[in-house]
Amino acid sequence: MNIRLYNARILTMEENREVFQGEIRIQDGRIIYVGAEGSFEGTDSQSSGAKSFQAFVKWDREIDCEGNLLMPGFKDAHTHSGMTLLRSYADDLPLNEWLNHKIFPVEAKMTGEDIGVLSKLAVLEYLTSGITAVFDMYLTPETIADAFDEMGMRCVQVGAVNNFSQSPAMVEEMFQKLNSRGPLQSYILGFHAEYTCSKELLTEIADLSHKYKAPVFTHLSETKQEVEGCKERYGMTPPVFLDSIGMFEYGGGGYHCVHMTSQDIDIMKKRGLYAITNPGSNTKLASGIAPVADFLKAGVKVAIGTDGPSSNNALDMFREMFLVTGLSKLREEDAAAADAMDILKMATVNGSHAMGLKDTDVLAAGKAADLIMIDLNQPNMQPLNNIAKNLVYSGSKQNVAMTMINGVILYEKGRFYTKEQPKEIYEKVEQIRRRLL
Amino acid sequence: MNIRLYNARILTMEENREVFQGEIRIQDGRIIYVGAEGSFEGTDSQSSGAKSFQAFVKWDREIDCEGNLLMPGFKDAHTHSGMTLLRSYADDLPLNEWLNHKIFPVEAKMTGEDIGVLSKLAVLEYLTSGITAVFDMYLTPETIADAFDEMGMRCVQVGAVNNFSQSPAMVEEMFQKLNSRGPLQSYILGFHAEYTCSKELLTEIADLSHKYKAPVFTHLSETKQEVEGCKERYGMTPPVFLDSIGMFEYGGGGYHCVHMTSQDIDIMKKRGLYAITNPGSNTKLASGIAPVADFLKAGVKVAIGTDGPSSNNALDMFREMFLVTGLSKLREEDAAAADAMDILKMATVNGSHAMGLKDTDVLAAGKAADLIMIDLNQPNMQPLNNIAKNLVYSGSKQNVAMTMINGVILYEKGRFYTKEQPKEIYEKVEQIRRRLL
Repeated sequence: MNIRLYNARILTMEENREVFQGEIRIQDGRIIYVGAEGSFEGTDSQSSGAKSFQAFVKWDREIDCEGNLLMPGFKDAHTHSGMTLLRSYADDLPLNEWLNHKIFPVEAKMTGEDIGVLSKLAVLEYLTSGITAVFDMYLTPETIADAFDEMGMRCVQVGAVNNFSQSPAMVEEMFQKLNSRGPLQSYILGFHAEYTCSKELLTEIADLSHKYKAPVFTHLSETKQEVEGCKERYGMTPPVFLDSIGMFEYGGGGYHCVHMTSQDIDIMKKRGLYAITNPGSNTKLASGIAPVADFLKAGVKVAIGTDGPSSNNALDMFREMFLVTGLSKLREEDAAAADAMDILKMATVNGSHAMGLKDTDVLAAGKAADLIMIDLNQPNMQPLNNIAKNLVYSGSKQNVAMTMINGVILYEKGRFYTKEQPKEIYEKVEQIRRRLL
Repeated sequence: MNIRLYNARILTMEENREVFQGEIRIQDGRIIYVGAEGSFEGTDSQSSGAKSFQAFVKWDREIDCEGNLLMPGFKDAHTHSGMTLLRSYADDLPLNEWLNHKIFPVEAKMTGEDIGVLSKLAVLEYLTSGITAVFDMYLTPETIADAFDEMGMRCVQVGAVNNFSQSPAMVEEMFQKLNSRGPLQSYILGFHAEYTCSKELLTEIADLSHKYKAPVFTHLSETKQEVEGCKERYGMTPPVFLDSIGMFEYGGGGYHCVHMTSQDIDIMKKRGLYAITNPGSNTKLASGIAPVADFLKAGVKVAIGTDGPSSNNALDMFREMFLVTGLSKLREEDAAAADAMDILKMATVNGSHAMGLKDTDVLAAGKAADLIMIDLNQPNMQPLNNIAKNLVYSGSKQNVAMTMINGVILYEKGRFYTKEQPKEIYEKVEQIRRRLL
């Protein structure tokens, strides 16, 4: 599909580039032009003179954006898509109780096929929120990859080694298999958390990281109890302990990063680790407020994740963006903390880089066409005093007019163009719900 | 218009009544039936036998709700609609600086006509969020009432007496005028805040309250500085001081109520005052987290407001609902604090009662037909493990399929049925923006 999107405002998310008026041209899943209208070096189907190899491009669709905004899709840098089943199933509980008494017993009964179906439900929701790629940690990587491929959505999975189910050997197998699978799926080394892994297991994961010179991600310092437990076990906070066994020699990062000392933050900076913040989940589970302003000050890169639909419970990047800045302002007692452009960068560029997706970060020629259209003609975006601030402070899922992944429009004006449609997916989820809950 | 909404799930918000399957019938702006399908005592246009006075009701529209949810519209219990102009105009500043250096200078230049137009923009946004009535405090009550009447939206205005513009005499005049104006507009006594009123002014307002035996509302204990300032001036916190001059003898309440002592909370309880919480604004301006859990424990009634679009910046009850519960959980370090049904009650029943709207609180025969339809067939509402929790924890404006006020559908499936349409309003707002900013 070759698509031309014209009469648009464009926020490329390249450094220091303001919103401008122009067009974007897409050929076979890649952006071939971002810029002013009429300056494209090739020709389109309407014009006669061929100036370059683009001469033969036919535009399958030319979309008048009516002044609306095109920007990179959001990257959800931490989620558990398969947990849609457990949305509103066990709320209003602290993390430990929620996990051990409510979540784990149901998860033990889920099949790989179930998890595929449940992940597809999550994909629908991501699309409505303009999320074009997710960093997913869950139980059955192959059925998850199948589900995302069938839906046409980009997914980076991360290992979830723990004492009970996933082994380092399985993670190594998936690392090889899913990284050679195709353009939409990839895999990064990881483990569930320090508190669910023996020291022996953790050492094996560090060894894997060294073997492949590859980054490692994990749940990190999410709750006070987790930090206290690690200090009891090893006399160190989780980042210090994990770094001491060589876990982060090739980078990676932590999900949550709520209870962090200045020494922890120094390690994050030194190792180039991403702090992936999940404010919706940390709020709902009463885990605490991450020190995002401290990360920014220290030069630690921050990305944003929704966490799973059982702890958040929405897969909504707009809500997360407002929470990241809002909670930072509250924590610092400073209304200037974490401004709108910082937040947009976290939700797009930084997420993309954390997930190892080098070509979905900004809108530019040569990059993958993972982009969204934001409807500026909704009342919550008016007047257009400052589009970036509007996105972060008053934007909502309602403003997502189109979501495109790898050059394919999967969601447009409230309709889904996925292979499997919502109705079928909801029915299958309901069958799983009746069986398991 | 006589409207029948059938094949619906219904959440009436009456005490201890669960969601059930049924229909709602509306005649000339009032609900005449809420219950199971087929049990209505009257007859509709399709049936032959007349059983009651309802025999001659013709249904202008019969709407198949396709299993979606009908519930009372949300009540936005504190806002400044006319501030839409200032959305994303001066963000990332603390309240005092924001107000004195950015907001007041522009407001001084706004005309009543401007404020009418700007309020209409806010109305559009309220409708997209399922808000059917607002408690509005702003500068020119009559042009605001005109704007809301023209748009068909319910608005309760509150006096904003202060040292600079609104006098008690003007508030008294508006109290008489707007309360005899018509079904959609009403007016409640109030002043801007203790820190913007002399003691003499405050005494005059208390006198007005005694004269009319009427409640009084005001901004109350929003920031630490406000509380400290009041203690310096009068040796008391704002609630204690205001109560000491007889301000709350006939009830009323406070907007924000962030920095409250246990003595303040006792006064709220004793006087039956409403604590109207505005978490989006308090977050964005770094004002603090209101002690909502303490209010609930003490039996103080809580309602929810968005505050104005310059401090929040969204007029989105879904975001506010999540923030009220989320911030309470964080503040209490307790994931069970402020559960979903508490929050829904704040956003509907309590808001309605705080605003003096006795017949828009729940869905029942005899009540005004101010109701909304929530699309449960969006992925963020699936599966339907618990509809109330879904509304609060994963619901969004995207789920608002229809907003009806006083029996008139003003917003349905993304389209506005207001007299003035978005495009005209946006253009007028843009003209104001060019003139004033």
